[in-house]
Amino acid sequence: MTQFNVAQFKQQFPLLGLNVENKSLIYFDNAATSQKPHCVIEAIKQFYETSNANVHRASHYLSSKATTAFEQSRESVKTFINAKSTKEIIWTKGTTESVNLVSHSLGLDRLCADDEIVLSASEHHANIVPWQLVAQKTGAKIRVLPVTASGIIDVTDVDTIINIKTKIVAVAHISNVIGKVNPIEKIIARAKSVSAFTFIDGAQAVAHITVDVQKLGCDFYAFSAHKMYGPTGVGVLFGKQSILESMPPYQSGGEMIKTVSFNRPTTFNTLPFKLESGTANISGVVALAEAISFIKPYIQDSIDYSDYEKQMTHHCYQQLSQLKGVKFIVEGEPDIPVLSFLLEGHHNHDIATLLDSYGIAVRAGHHCAMPLMESLAINGCIRVSLAPYNTIAEIDVLIDTLKRILQKADSFVETNLSPERVKSIDSASRLDVIINTFSQVKGWDNRHREIMLLGKTLERLDKSERHNEYLINGCESLAWLKIEQHENNTFSFTADSDAKIIRGLLVIVLAAYNGKTAQEIAEFDVNEYFSKLGILQHLSPSRGNGLRAIVESIKHNAQ
Amino acid sequence: MTQFNVAQFKQQFPLLGLNVENKSLIYFDNAATSQKPHCVIEAIKQFYETSNANVHRASHYLSSKATTAFEQSRESVKTFINAKSTKEIIWTKGTTESVNLVSHSLGLDRLCADDEIVLSASEHHANIVPWQLVAQKTGAKIRVLPVTASGIIDVTDVDTIINIKTKIVAVAHISNVIGKVNPIEKIIARAKSVSAFTFIDGAQAVAHITVDVQKLGCDFYAFSAHKMYGPTGVGVLFGKQSILESMPPYQSGGEMIKTVSFNRPTTFNTLPFKLESGTANISGVVALAEAISFIKPYIQDSIDYSDYEKQMTHHCYQQLSQLKGVKFIVEGEPDIPVLSFLLEGHHNHDIATLLDSYGIAVRAGHHCAMPLMESLAINGCIRVSLAPYNTIAEIDVLIDTLKRILQKADSFVETNLSPERVKSIDSASRLDVIINTFSQVKGWDNRHREIMLLGKTLERLDKSERHNEYLINGCESLAWLKIEQHENNTFSFTADSDAKIIRGLLVIVLAAYNGKTAQEIAEFDVNEYFSKLGILQHLSPSRGNGLRAIVESIKHNAQ
Repeated sequence: MTQFNVAQFKQQFPLLGLNVENKSLIYFDNAATSQKPHCVIEAIKQFYETSNANVHRASHYLSSKATTAFEQSRESVKTFINAKSTKEIIWTKGTTESVNLVSHSLGLDRLCADDEIVLSASEHHANIVPWQLVAQKTGAKIRVLPVTASGIIDVTDVDTIINIKTKIVAVAHISNVIGKVNPIEKIIARAKSVSAFTFIDGAQAVAHITVDVQKLGCDFYAFSAHKMYGPTGVGVLFGKQSILESMPPYQSGGEMIKTVSFNRPTTFNTLPFKLESGTANISGVVALAEAISFIKPYIQDSIDYSDYEKQMTHHCYQQLSQLKGVKFIVEGEPDIPVLSFLLEGHHNHDIATLLDSYGIAVRAGHHCAMPLMESLAINGCIRVSLAPYNTIAEIDVLIDTLKRILQKADSFVETNLSPERVKSIDSASRLDVIINTFSQVKGWDNRHREIMLLGKTLERLDKSERHNEYLINGCESLAWLKIEQHENNTFSFTADSDAKIIRGLLVIVLAAYNGKTAQEIAEFDVNEYFSKLGILQHLSPSRGNGLRAIVESIKHNAQ
Repeated sequence: MTQFNVAQFKQQFPLLGLNVENKSLIYFDNAATSQKPHCVIEAIKQFYETSNANVHRASHYLSSKATTAFEQSRESVKTFINAKSTKEIIWTKGTTESVNLVSHSLGLDRLCADDEIVLSASEHHANIVPWQLVAQKTGAKIRVLPVTASGIIDVTDVDTIINIKTKIVAVAHISNVIGKVNPIEKIIARAKSVSAFTFIDGAQAVAHITVDVQKLGCDFYAFSAHKMYGPTGVGVLFGKQSILESMPPYQSGGEMIKTVSFNRPTTFNTLPFKLESGTANISGVVALAEAISFIKPYIQDSIDYSDYEKQMTHHCYQQLSQLKGVKFIVEGEPDIPVLSFLLEGHHNHDIATLLDSYGIAVRAGHHCAMPLMESLAINGCIRVSLAPYNTIAEIDVLIDTLKRILQKADSFVETNLSPERVKSIDSASRLDVIINTFSQVKGWDNRHREIMLLGKTLERLDKSERHNEYLINGCESLAWLKIEQHENNTFSFTADSDAKIIRGLLVIVLAAYNGKTAQEIAEFDVNEYFSKLGILQHLSPSRGNGLRAIVESIKHNAQ
């Protein structure tokens, strides 16, 4: 056993040297996607420079070379998860497609009205919605395993919830929000006892723990390359051979076909090709093999790697626990370094945006697990997800920055746009004051602060008015817009949001449109305005889209 | 207008300097996939080294950077094909997935029993089988537009075939075997007149001609990045906004979801996200924009580029025409440099394999267009498909090599394994003679020749015996194997194939197994045998798989 060397591990990732806002980037969004080591990037480059051709079917050297690499990758995956045969390894474009493949091919084929599909309350949307759609089409029902206070799937009532009516059980090995290993062995055993198929979403597991599909005994196991140091656009579906053989094709075209005729029945290829269609992400598949070669020794051979992950998890958990206002969404330390929490009195997105201005990438929101948020009675949370190229020092920077943010929030000093000042300015002059102020402000950190201060000046809408009719589509945080048209043909807008930064942006937008006629609204060059303020390029895409959605809504309603 | 400079164009493709069998590679399989210019490979590398993050939903710098690049690529595609809005551009993993998306989302939703889907006889399997599966599920019928003698879709009876029952018309802009621009304007006009949806498979068109979806007026247009100098695993579906808006989701999970709950109906995102699910092939999408920047000036601005393509096409067509035995599969010169032909008296795969031994990559087979082969009454053909990095000199090498092959075939000289000699050796010694001979032979060219000579010694099976019962699955060419068990428990095998090289391989395999008992067959180390002969590494994967399928069949039957 060699000792895990963080510095050595980290230096294999070229992106991690990046500077953001003059600070060295701290990437804590690994559960969304991991960074890629040099060898994986190089494998893609090498493929295109020395082996690129379409695979199978051709009789030439390049195609042969490409096919060999492509099929060797299948062999690597087989060994990596200990499948019995490469026939059990199906290439997909990611975990989501793997779920769609099984739910549609197997689900539509086997499910009848009143059959039951069992999911858990902590599933990612991708392991819920495909099953919901299949349930809708077949009349099957969805039953949900709840989650314990510590965030794992609650198996107390597993014998009731998984019963003779259950045909399919689909659960995550590890939730993408909670980071704890679910008791899937118990769930699989119970499913087997009622002859239900078992599908395990392993997207969050493969980069952290050893996965042995034969030992697990599940029927299906799915994961994505991009969350385990591999490229985007490649996923794996493992399925037991006999089950895959019994399934009808999913997508059709290309290698999955044996014969086609307009006069006789079309026939299909054998496994694994039967369930793959069209030209695959060949370079991606080849690079996945490289990602496996890279990470396998760490995950499967070195206890130090997982020790190091546990050490980081423990440190991050302890440090966060000691911060005033931090509330973890479930009890107890996670098994893999995925930590989700709230900061009381602060909107999750506000914190994430502020951390970003310090070069720290975390994620805020529902993390594609709205039912989990609902069951925990929260709107979302902040998620810090680490990889072994992260360091204890980086965690300390996060903690220090959070402390700084919390202190600052308590002590905003007087500026150009102090709430008192803005409120005292008549609405006609407000636009100029905003443009003027922003033109004098340097850096996103300070602009962000001005936006947050502006947010404080927004009159809140009454709760009774924050209803669906006023809700703006396309805005990630909730935002409401109320429009009134006056006798002189001008419009006035009042608005509100649950996110402070959006409240600030609303003030900026309303300053531009309030009191104007339809024609004036149509003619106002909002892009130039945003560009003068220098804000759009700093907003996250979802924030930017949200801002555009507000503008669109105003323009649309003023027509 | 700048003049097209082949050398300058070619030097942007790093792979094209490759040597195969000590000869510089001639890549004539561009319709299967094109090579990638340096800038596209570099774009992938750059993405992973400077911008890698998951897109949308996150509030941090990297995610914002990745999302901006990702959405800018959508903008590039929009402009490239002149769509009205980026909402009309849906990312898929390739043309095949684009067909599956439309056939399943729109097809399953709208088609009823006795509705008609119109395809053409020259479609790629990927634009046939998804429609066949949807037809099976809905009771709709498939009608087929025939192909003229010159290989384009025959519109003589378009008004009858496309009629009031027609709901969807799906045809290729250019067939992947014939290389001629189909009269899709007429087909689209007729489809519109009966309010049928139109789907155009543009996989073979986008790298050669300007595509303007508004001018074409089609409802859907699909293509793949990897056939237009972009990466594998990315495709585009263009669809008219109003139609896309009316379609139910296809795959589900991720960005296509707005809200999920176990208690209320799940709701979906707006376009284009509604039809995209899971983490996309982000690096691939970003690199596609680079491929468009690279190729757009050539395709859309420079007549010289298309002049150069026409010049190559003309030269290749003329030169092939003058070769004895060359028979084009349709009349007349193609519009883009895709040339398909037969060489009378020779199996297509034998020619392709031999060309490969001279470093020339062409493709032989049915080219995923079996119905076209059926309608032309051929088993397959040889396809030479060029790109503008190919040269007139390379075409001349092809022609010279074909001439050499044809001369050689007529004048095989006496060797160790001359048919007379092999026939005179008793079957017990045959194995040793084969191993001995191959151990003295150098280079694939000579080994190939010995295999072909061996093929001449194989007793042909009677036509009546070449039936399905004896057919070997997994062998690309047809191959039959007949087994007899004798009283002394030994087996004897007779076999045949339509391909000369497979007949040679059959002699090699049968020499190892004929006259042996079940135990001897099980114990024989066939991998060592193949390794001694030095053949497996030179066979194309499909040939290699075919060989393995023959061995498997022998072992299985002898159990």
